[in-house]
Amino acid sequence: MQKLRVESFSISLDGFGAGLNQSLDKPFGVGGERLHQWFSPTKTFQQNVLGKSNGTLGVDNDFAENGFKNIGAWIIGRNMFSPYRGLPNDNWKGWWGENPPYHVPVFILTNYEHESIVMEGGTTFHFVTEGIHAALEKAFDSANGKDVRLGGGINTIRQYLKAQLVDELHLAVSPIFIGSGENLYLNLELTSLGYICTKHISSDKAIHLVIKKTINT
Amino acid sequence: MQKLRVESFSISLDGFGAGLNQSLDKPFGVGGERLHQWFSPTKTFQQNVLGKSNGTLGVDNDFAENGFKNIGAWIIGRNMFSPYRGLPNDNWKGWWGENPPYHVPVFILTNYEHESIVMEGGTTFHFVTEGIHAALEKAFDSANGKDVRLGGGINTIRQYLKAQLVDELHLAVSPIFIGSGENLYLNLELTSLGYICTKHISSDKAIHLVIKKTINT
Repeated sequence: MQKLRVESFSISLDGFGAGLNQSLDKPFGVGGERLHQWFSPTKTFQQNVLGKSNGTLGVDNDFAENGFKNIGAWIIGRNMFSPYRGLPNDNWKGWWGENPPYHVPVFILTNYEHESIVMEGGTTFHFVTEGIHAALEKAFDSANGKDVRLGGGINTIRQYLKAQLVDELHLAVSPIFIGSGENLYLNLELTSLGYICTKHISSDKAIHLVIKKTINT
Repeated sequence: MQKLRVESFSISLDGFGAGLNQSLDKPFGVGGERLHQWFSPTKTFQQNVLGKSNGTLGVDNDFAENGFKNIGAWIIGRNMFSPYRGLPNDNWKGWWGENPPYHVPVFILTNYEHESIVMEGGTTFHFVTEGIHAALEKAFDSANGKDVRLGGGINTIRQYLKAQLVDELHLAVSPIFIGSGENLYLNLELTSLGYICTKHISSDKAIHLVIKKTINT
C-alpha cells in the first residue's frame, strides 16, 4: 500500500511550524529558521540540498535520510513553493534553483492554474487547483507505487490530517518557543482523528516524534 | 536567592495540562490521567504520595525526586485543591487525605476567604484572595529561605509565567495528544517573556524539558 508521509517536519515546543511574516528573505517567517537547526548540519541536507559531501551522521541524519526513502512524488502547499501571494509570478521556479532536491513530480496546491514546470534532475512542478484529494490521487498515480511525501507548510498538513489522509508523520520538535505564527495543533483533535505517537527519541538538537494513523478510513 | 519553581508538571504533546470537565472522579479532566503515566510508577510518587516502599528509579524518578528538594512552601490554584467551583465546600480538605504529600505550607489561590486548615504531617492549607503576587510573597516568607513550588493547574502557571515570576520549569511531556482542555502555550509568548528551554531528555514515558527565565525582571 502506498502511504502519504510527512517527514522531517520541524515544529517548536509550542507547536509552531513557521513564524509570522513569511517573505523572500525569510521563507520560514520571523524566527522560523531556528526550527531547522537539527536538519541543516546533517549529511542528508548537505548532500541532497546543498550538493556538498560533508555533514553529520546520527539520529538526526537517520530521520532526515529516511524521509527521502521510497518517495515517488511530493505534495506541497503554495506557500512552501513561493513567497508570492495571489496571482503567481511566472518567473518563480521555487526556492531551490535549477535542480531542486525532489527529483520526482511535485504537486503544488494552489488556487491558480499554471502550466507545469520541468526542472533539472527529474523534478517537475505540477499545479493542482482541484483540492487536496485530487492532488493526492495525482501524486499516488505518478509515484510508480512508491509513497508520497507531504511537505508542508502547516496549513497543508493540517488539511490532510483533518481528512485523515496522512498515514505517518515524523515531526522534529526543536527545543525552542516561537509563540505566534502557524500552529500545527490549534483545534486539531489528533486522537479523535486516529493518530497516536508511537515513538519519541531525543537528539541534542531535536525531539523526534513518529506518529501513525491507527484508524483505517 | 529563593526561586519559584514549577516541577514535574505534565502536559501532552499538544500542550494540554488537563482535559475537559474536571470532576471529583477525574481530577485531571477527561483523558488527563494519562498525562501522569511517567510519574505514578516512580519511587518518589509511590513513597511520597502513596506511602509505599517500591517504585521505579531512573530519569523519571530523578525529575520527580528533584521536584521535592529544597521546597519550603507551595502555591496551587483552587482547581488543584478542589473539584468544587464557586463557594468553597467546608468539608473538603483536598484530594490527598489527612496527611497530604506537601509537609509545608500550601497557599491556595481563590476568590473566597477561608480559614487555614492544619493537616497532619506539617501541611497547612492557606487561602489567598489577594492575587498571585500576594500569594508569592506569603509563600516566600513562610518557606524558611527555601524555594517555592508552583503546583498548577495550567491557569495558575500561565498567570505566573505572564508575570515573569517563575524562575524554572520542569515540564514532563507525555507522548499523547489530548486535543482540548487547558493549554499551557495558548497565546503565551514564552521567548518574549524571557524563557528558554535549556535541557531536553527523553525517557520511555516522557520527554522532560527544563525551562529557565533568562531575563531578570
